[in-house]
Amino acid sequence: MFLGRADAPDLQRRSTLANLHPQLAVNGQIEILPFAWERLEDEATDLLILATPHHESRAWVPKAIERGIRVIDLSGAWRLNNALNRSAYDFEDEDVELAATVQAEAVYGSPELHKDAISKARLVANPGCYATSVILALAPLLKSKLIDLQQGITCDAKSGVSGAGKTPSPGTHFMHVADNLSAYSVFGHRHTGELLEQLNLAETQIQFTPHLLPIPRGILSTIYLKLSHPMDGDAIVNIIREFYRGCPFVRVRESGMLPQIQHVVGSNFCHLGVAVHIDGQRVVLVSCLDNLLKGAAGQAIQNLNLMCGWDESEGLL
Amino acid sequence: MFLGRADAPDLQRRSTLANLHPQLAVNGQIEILPFAWERLEDEATDLLILATPHHESRAWVPKAIERGIRVIDLSGAWRLNNALNRSAYDFEDEDVELAATVQAEAVYGSPELHKDAISKARLVANPGCYATSVILALAPLLKSKLIDLQQGITCDAKSGVSGAGKTPSPGTHFMHVADNLSAYSVFGHRHTGELLEQLNLAETQIQFTPHLLPIPRGILSTIYLKLSHPMDGDAIVNIIREFYRGCPFVRVRESGMLPQIQHVVGSNFCHLGVAVHIDGQRVVLVSCLDNLLKGAAGQAIQNLNLMCGWDESEGLL
Amino acid sequence: MFLGRADAPDLQRRSTLANLHPQLAVNGQIEILPFAWERLEDEATDLLILATPHHESRAWVPKAIERGIRVIDLSGAWRLNNALNRSAYDFEDEDVELAATVQAEAVYGSPELHKDAISKARLVANPGCYATSVILALAPLLKSKLIDLQQGITCDAKSGVSGAGKTPSPGTHFMHVADNLSAYSVFGHRHTGELLEQLNLAETQIQFTPHLLPIPRGILSTIYLKLSHPMDGDAIVNIIREFYRGCPFVRVRESGMLPQIQHVVGSNFCHLGVAVHIDGQRVVLVSCLDNLLKGAAGQAIQNLNLMCGWDESEGLL
Amino acid sequence: MFLGRADAPDLQRRSTLANLHPQLAVNGQIEILPFAWERLEDEATDLLILATPHHESRAWVPKAIERGIRVIDLSGAWRLNNALNRSAYDFEDEDVELAATVQAEAVYGSPELHKDAISKARLVANPGCYATSVILALAPLLKSKLIDLQQGITCDAKSGVSGAGKTPSPGTHFMHVADNLSAYSVFGHRHTGELLEQLNLAETQIQFTPHLLPIPRGILSTIYLKLSHPMDGDAIVNIIREFYRGCPFVRVRESGMLPQIQHVVGSNFCHLGVAVHIDGQRVVLVSCLDNLLKGAAGQAIQNLNLMCGWDESEGLL
Repeated sequence: MFLGRADAPDLQRRSTLANLHPQLAVNGQIEILPFAWERLEDEATDLLILATPHHESRAWVPKAIERGIRVIDLSGAWRLNNALNRSAYDFEDEDVELAATVQAEAVYGSPELHKDAISKARLVANPGCYATSVILALAPLLKSKLIDLQQGITCDAKSGVSGAGKTPSPGTHFMHVADNLSAYSVFGHRHTGELLEQLNLAETQIQFTPHLLPIPRGILSTIYLKLSHPMDGDAIVNIIREFYRGCPFVRVRESGMLPQIQHVVGSNFCHLGVAVHIDGQRVVLVSCLDNLLKGAAGQAIQNLNLMCGWDESEGLL
Repeated sequence: MFLGRADAPDLQRRSTLANLHPQLAVNGQIEILPFAWERLEDEATDLLILATPHHESRAWVPKAIERGIRVIDLSGAWRLNNALNRSAYDFEDEDVELAATVQAEAVYGSPELHKDAISKARLVANPGCYATSVILALAPLLKSKLIDLQQGITCDAKSGVSGAGKTPSPGTHFMHVADNLSAYSVFGHRHTGELLEQLNLAETQIQFTPHLLPIPRGILSTIYLKLSHPMDGDAIVNIIREFYRGCPFVRVRESGMLPQIQHVVGSNFCHLGVAVHIDGQRVVLVSCLDNLLKGAAGQAIQNLNLMCGWDESEGLL
Repeated sequence: MFLGRADAPDLQRRSTLANLHPQLAVNGQIEILPFAWERLEDEATDLLILATPHHESRAWVPKAIERGIRVIDLSGAWRLNNALNRSAYDFEDEDVELAATVQAEAVYGSPELHKDAISKARLVANPGCYATSVILALAPLLKSKLIDLQQGITCDAKSGVSGAGKTPSPGTHFMHVADNLSAYSVFGHRHTGELLEQLNLAETQIQFTPHLLPIPRGILSTIYLKLSHPMDGDAIVNIIREFYRGCPFVRVRESGMLPQIQHVVGSNFCHLGVAVHIDGQRVVLVSCLDNLLKGAAGQAIQNLNLMCGWDESEGLL
Repeated sequence: MFLGRADAPDLQRRSTLANLHPQLAVNGQIEILPFAWERLEDEATDLLILATPHHESRAWVPKAIERGIRVIDLSGAWRLNNALNRSAYDFEDEDVELAATVQAEAVYGSPELHKDAISKARLVANPGCYATSVILALAPLLKSKLIDLQQGITCDAKSGVSGAGKTPSPGTHFMHVADNLSAYSVFGHRHTGELLEQLNLAETQIQFTPHLLPIPRGILSTIYLKLSHPMDGDAIVNIIREFYRGCPFVRVRESGMLPQIQHVVGSNFCHLGVAVHIDGQRVVLVSCLDNLLKGAAGQAIQNLNLMCGWDESEGLL
């Protein structure tokens, strides 16, 4: 197991999984080593999973691809095709042309949307946690052209603290988070670009506002939209279920039954729920997932399974 | 100090404030007594504060008014003029005519909206906690006719558990609430009627969805709206500040600075914040208050002060 | 899957695992049925796992044994041989003689202490959660006769709320638990009897005080004792590790490294840590486990594995 | 209002209380200024309250005393007379002789123990939060010589996160604290020296172990001791109540009623409870206070009141 350079200084003291993460240490003394390309080559690595800062991923991925190593990258570095959207991240490409080439073949790692492309990809850009929760809720109704886009879609999302990373900061200090709730990045969150590109929406058609919840993990997104024509809840549920037929990690609740964060924490599932106003047009979608699993590492394993031709749910149930 | 009948059985064992609420017992042995009209008369009571279930308030208030006792009622029994809105509550009036007469003179206890009427009222219906947070955010912009009501207003509200009352239930069990978030009463929360009546909106123009937060107290409402014409944030802030000039318990943050629940817990303040999209039309309002204070008991004291001709903030700063 | 009678009334509405526990519903529509002896017989049941109230377990177990069905009972009904200790529970035996016979063959289900007996047992009394955390910490040093019992052993234990069961009550209401800590059952907790019997101690030699933590799950017990003769931390760790050689679910940290609740939640492990004063005699042991797993259901599965001759850790890693 | 140097860099942006602590900003635009001796002199300051790091307090206090300014210091810099105990802190005195002189006149700021000395003091060393909770619980029984000191006293203390300060660190990150409990500084916490000096105990006679609770504020200390001779609970309660006669901020519950953290958070009270074993000798004391109030700022105000000849509870009820 490798850790990125950022963590390297600490590794002299705590070089085993048992010391770094006692809760994971079921099999004793797995060693954790600083990252080095030589080590990858010595071990004839086929595939690399990067959970590195955006700018490091942006620098490392082309080098891995050049070495013939496939990559699943958990950062935001390669998720966005549109340079304008990408400008939300702070990285500069050393080799602009190479970066453009690699970007062009990056596949957005949403198995429910891009299963085939992921299977063959050299680079999978693992989706953002918020983005996954919103995209999975909206994709079926948008594909079916049921939403009145004149009215705009409002996504009010709430996430646990692990979404903010492990770096200590005033904003992740227990005293700031506990017994609190705050909205942040209003009109400017980086995941918005993923929504626009994956859902093929204009910026005026969707609004996304994240909030920081006083819990360790889990995302709940409450999504407000208006249908073009009245429908009943069961019909909407059926459309969404149909869209996800054969997808092992999306569960669509019965109409009127809404998922809660507790229903998904610790699993790779995304649970979706639908409530419809008696007017048949105003709809609230609720989407829940565990930001560390379906929103990050779990989805990465799902992508790994697809890339390697294994069962999609291997290691995830 | 009186407690309602519902709590009476326990009072034999724990008849002092020191035993019932050790955290409040700064002055020793205040006795808590079961409610009785005779006791009120013996003590020549001028004003009664009721924190009783809706149906009890509906039954008791006319009796108090008949006895010449002014009332501040914290339940939802008297807040709604429209019988359709009122049907969200489960009470039946014994004396329908008397109830109608009393209802007709009930004043909705929002000091920022109805200060003069409250001062003279015989019955003040203390507002709902969610309703207060939304009404205070929207009243200034609606009064100024700045909002595009064609687009609809979306209110995504989140509240701590004390809003659910102290009765033990599966939904207030620690194991259900902790590490969780859930939406509830979608398209059907009782406080919606207060929004419609106080803001003079049609049901199609506003949507209100509450969520249960894993914290003891505090409400944050995120409100999405579109302005009829582009404005900048400072101008919006100024309009709201102007509206609340002279109101000691509403604080309007600078444009782009959003309140958090931590900023208001333990105080009677409502904090309002404004974020505007660069298009100048899409606006997010964030409104925070402590549901037990500005959303309930604190606002009741504010009303008490007005009714008695005292300083509005007496006992609240 | 069966649920006890206590839950039966709810089952008409929500008869599948997917509805009752959405977070467990990875395999769709497992049905949940009210308990009935006939059903057990129809299915030629070999072994019954009971998670029923103490008095129900006390009544049902003899009936199961009579039918030739082996039992793992998660209640406190059969853990105590000493009638005085057992009097802490509220049950009366219908057939006193039969109960005595069954009690005589009940095996205390601590796999680290009674592996062989469990393998052959007809009735395994699954240990209490607190008791497991204390017994696993103390058993090695007591067996080695290293503790000065004149001084007494002090066990200060802290547990998450799931230890209190799922019945709503004022004490499990979120508003009582959150942001709080309380000691309870001082000098009188039911698990004390398990400590006395399993560790072979007199009541004067050990003191056990539980506290309710504002977290969903996990127990941390801080145990204070004095050694008869000075030893260093490594020597103590070695004795404990030697005692648990071959036990897959006990991990003993290096001297001075203390476990935390986070290290064990979600796993069947008990983590033990040792700190020794420079005098070499005063010792603090810290023991952590997940009360729902190693303290209840996980340990039951461990016992099931032993009873069925399967690998002890089957389904638990 | 002044802030220490450590916070100065941030002050350019946020120089008002309303911006730095919105929840305190009831009176608008109080300015916060960097500390400077000149400013103190300009304002003819009588008394300085320092909430600065230990080494800064150690350096600044002699300078303030020299200027004729009385000081209440909230750090640990001046609490300990014994140099060995003081060595737990990392400071070096520039002027050793001056420091010794100042130390000699420092009064430990426990109003319940040293009321008269505090009134006249030039330097009050405000007590540690843990130390306050333990000292107030034990002082009455130790003064009455009722405790069997051969057996040793065990103090198992638990504190909320605000006790760890506001500096972000891995240990105060929400992800480390939430849903967790951990023991720390076993056999080596800095507050131990305060217990030894204030309670006049030898290091072998008392053991103190702190734990980090997943809550913002509050301390609960569970204290185990043995009486020399059997007593009943009421008698013990009476002795403690007699000791605190006239002390407005210590409340002693009836025998067998134990305080909880919720009972004291937000107040300057210390609540004490007593449970006695039926043997009449084993005693559990439970002591609760709010670490930010009675354990820090509230006790400082109490000391300020005494130093200025005001009512001891001014501003605290």
